[in-house]
Amino acid sequence: MMEQVDETTIQGLKELGAFGLQVPSELGGVGLCNTQYARLVEIVGMHDLGVGIILGAHQSIGFKGILLFGTKAQREKYLPKLASGETIAAFCLTEPSSGSDAASIRSSAVPSPCGKYYTLNGSKIWISNGGMADIFTVFAKTPVTDAATGATKEKITAFVVERSFGGVTHGPPEKKMGIKASNTAEVYFDGVRVPSENVLGEVGGGFKVAMHILNNGRFGMAAALAGTMKAIIAKAVDHAANRIQFGEKIHNFGLIQEKLARMAMLQYVTESMAYMVSANMDQGCTDFQLEAAISKIFGSEAAWKVTDECIQIMGGMGFMKEPGVERVLRDVRIFRIFEGTNDILRLFVALQGCKDKGKELSGLGNALKNPLENAGLLLGEASKQLRRRAGLGSGLSLSGIIHPELSRSGKLAVQALEQFATTVEAKLIKYKKEIINEQFVLQRLADSAIDLYAMVVVLSRASRSLSEGHLTAQHEKMLCDSWCIEAAARIRENMAALQSDPQQQELFRNFKGISKALVEQGGVVTSNPLGF
Amino acid sequence: MMEQVDETTIQGLKELGAFGLQVPSELGGVGLCNTQYARLVEIVGMHDLGVGIILGAHQSIGFKGILLFGTKAQREKYLPKLASGETIAAFCLTEPSSGSDAASIRSSAVPSPCGKYYTLNGSKIWISNGGMADIFTVFAKTPVTDAATGATKEKITAFVVERSFGGVTHGPPEKKMGIKASNTAEVYFDGVRVPSENVLGEVGGGFKVAMHILNNGRFGMAAALAGTMKAIIAKAVDHAANRIQFGEKIHNFGLIQEKLARMAMLQYVTESMAYMVSANMDQGCTDFQLEAAISKIFGSEAAWKVTDECIQIMGGMGFMKEPGVERVLRDVRIFRIFEGTNDILRLFVALQGCKDKGKELSGLGNALKNPLENAGLLLGEASKQLRRRAGLGSGLSLSGIIHPELSRSGKLAVQALEQFATTVEAKLIKYKKEIINEQFVLQRLADSAIDLYAMVVVLSRASRSLSEGHLTAQHEKMLCDSWCIEAAARIRENMAALQSDPQQQELFRNFKGISKALVEQGGVVTSNPLGF
Repeated sequence: MMEQVDETTIQGLKELGAFGLQVPSELGGVGLCNTQYARLVEIVGMHDLGVGIILGAHQSIGFKGILLFGTKAQREKYLPKLASGETIAAFCLTEPSSGSDAASIRSSAVPSPCGKYYTLNGSKIWISNGGMADIFTVFAKTPVTDAATGATKEKITAFVVERSFGGVTHGPPEKKMGIKASNTAEVYFDGVRVPSENVLGEVGGGFKVAMHILNNGRFGMAAALAGTMKAIIAKAVDHAANRIQFGEKIHNFGLIQEKLARMAMLQYVTESMAYMVSANMDQGCTDFQLEAAISKIFGSEAAWKVTDECIQIMGGMGFMKEPGVERVLRDVRIFRIFEGTNDILRLFVALQGCKDKGKELSGLGNALKNPLENAGLLLGEASKQLRRRAGLGSGLSLSGIIHPELSRSGKLAVQALEQFATTVEAKLIKYKKEIINEQFVLQRLADSAIDLYAMVVVLSRASRSLSEGHLTAQHEKMLCDSWCIEAAARIRENMAALQSDPQQQELFRNFKGISKALVEQGGVVTSNPLGF
Repeated sequence: MMEQVDETTIQGLKELGAFGLQVPSELGGVGLCNTQYARLVEIVGMHDLGVGIILGAHQSIGFKGILLFGTKAQREKYLPKLASGETIAAFCLTEPSSGSDAASIRSSAVPSPCGKYYTLNGSKIWISNGGMADIFTVFAKTPVTDAATGATKEKITAFVVERSFGGVTHGPPEKKMGIKASNTAEVYFDGVRVPSENVLGEVGGGFKVAMHILNNGRFGMAAALAGTMKAIIAKAVDHAANRIQFGEKIHNFGLIQEKLARMAMLQYVTESMAYMVSANMDQGCTDFQLEAAISKIFGSEAAWKVTDECIQIMGGMGFMKEPGVERVLRDVRIFRIFEGTNDILRLFVALQGCKDKGKELSGLGNALKNPLENAGLLLGEASKQLRRRAGLGSGLSLSGIIHPELSRSGKLAVQALEQFATTVEAKLIKYKKEIINEQFVLQRLADSAIDLYAMVVVLSRASRSLSEGHLTAQHEKMLCDSWCIEAAARIRENMAALQSDPQQQELFRNFKGISKALVEQGGVVTSNPLGF
């Protein structure tokens, strides 16, 4: 097993411009907007996620910081070679003791007395492209003096570090479950002298830089995984259309039909989310973090389910290496973990929803309700932002309002929205700022927010297809209606349980108690029924 | 990568008697009962499922037919060497065109004119131990003449085939997602002369033999996977108890607590099912197919979820090969497919439930209700079988009645049972014998039957622990109550939807329609939002 991409492929990708898709053309890139980028990574995702990680680690996070925050000099110095693939980039945030808690990194960059350089020390783990990159975006603690008080505090600063500075080394390629074609390695910075002009963004502003880069890259994952699912669904359909058991093509069985239909729904929702976010970004919207996080959570879990179900449809053949589906399942697993684990992102989604979105979302309820009665009301300035969130604005490709044929699903969405907003309000009144510690509650709010957003994006997309008379409009109506029926039921049950069910409180207490006992015991607490 | 178990380990296992655990001691085995066997495979499952497959393919299915149906001569000839591991066995049912539809096999065994032997031709795929076995239990079509009509029909017959008969060959080891240590290969039978005395069971009775072997082996899978989950939970707990993020051990976060608690619940249910089934078998019960199928479905899905969640808790580390959790996830994947896919077993569970269990289950409702009011009623002869099913009989280790502290959960179970029985009745009245074609309905009935059986087994086990004052009784009460709260809610929602919700009918129509369109299109029907 090679566990790497062959040089011809890499060279071909470089010639196609695939290493600099979003770099402006005057700096040697292809100059794509986010939507065009989404389309290209969708294609990469259809073929190989290992290659996708090499490209994504390079441009979606590796040098994205230079693109977003770089000075003119930094951009001109680094982007042309990065765009052509002459140099490869990597993003260095995670450390052995700092994963989800990115603020706790220990790498340090100490400014020289002369002010001309920083001395960087630290080690980073699980760095995609870590063993082959030339240019690193590195996050390290630097002492920052408060101008007002004179007190010095350690704050994170981002740096552009060249391997050629010296003192940069890396470990062997990590042995992973999947995405084996991509290189993952530890990267060590040992007394690296980084010129002060290589600070990226503001000194002490590194945490913001990191979060911006990650937020900015997330929509690409949903797009790539929408492509992956498309390819996997084709394999599942091919098997179901040809395999005969019990005297019938197996796609004639309800069991298989439900699996295929669910796979198609998950792919449709993911694809809709990816392009909704990229369209919003392309329209200059800067407040897309919530939607991008949702698209990453949803897409990675959808791809996992779809690929797993394809294996199940294929039976024994799915477990074999030859058809290549098990490889995709292994590849896909990391997407629920990296660039913000889905667990942490769920908390982010819920807290955003609670913090400033509670009111906004109940406003969105009105915005969504209106088109069913009077589309004209939507044109007001006041609802512009809400409309954008709901994809009801002048989006590049997802604009439109709810089509009358979808009015029942639209009503389900509005009801769900109201249930959600009411529950958020009640929980905020109950817990106030302490809501931040109520993770059992937050998880359930996040799940419903995700379901809700999924309803809104498919309503928007299917409405447009119906309005424009697309050939697939009635098919999309089925996907959209099915999604809305089930999502609305989930939200109704979740919110009802959260609102009033004393059994829910008992469950939360039990989870805490069971977990505590497991930790004390170091594992399962009960002996088996024989007493062992 | 060796992708095989080293010889020392195999030799050690042979010396321990691990290759003949259930063979009577007078034939050279260890002579264990099913419960004792369950305990040993639980330990194997804690360590390595690849080794578990070698042992299971050998004795749980490979030569189980000889143990269950063998003549005295067959038993004496084969079992001693099989028990010592001097010869290795394999079970040969599946063919390229015959997976779940076992009755459709094409291998044939033609009797010689003299009646002394059969000539066996055919090829079998995905045979565990196929490349190393000496003794094969092979299923093939034989012509069977009806004594009354004189008509000849092809029926399945089981044979004991020795590799030494000649004409037996095998393909290379299959490249698989997991359980790589176990050998999986195609096995070819090319004009093999099988002596007539090697027919296993009755001529033409092979399908029954195959189903008996598989039914008989299923409880072992749940036991093995209960062991696997125990080991995985220990790893997850170890990580959660030591990993610090955001200034806290991560087990202090509700997110992690819920994951750990759910893992413990799934392990508890699986373990309870495995030992409930083995105890029933040891008491001479022959009607355990339904429970064994449920335990296989539940255990394989529980192990998948638990292992997947362990990876999620471990974050990036979980995706690495080194801690060994990703290996277990790959190993566990096949358990949802082999020895009866979970999909086919779900249909079996539902149809059994509909066919003759509808009434029985509503009777079980009464049997379960009684102990809450009057335990004495349970002692009547009439409810003996129902009590056994509910684990309320004189089971080796799971006997007991519902403890008063669990009465609320008991009531939830009884309510769920009534909802289930009412729905089954309504569906039978609606569809009559055509229920067999209503797979959307059957799946949902199966899910609820599984949830229901899980409630009953944990109620039984936790009751016993409370009654006997086990140290872990209160912990078990938390596991049991939590399970019952959630399972009851799922059953309530599923049954209510099936009973009366017109949206459910719409969903089923949509699934059919979406699937049909996918098959016509050869994959995803919709172009992406850009029109590509």
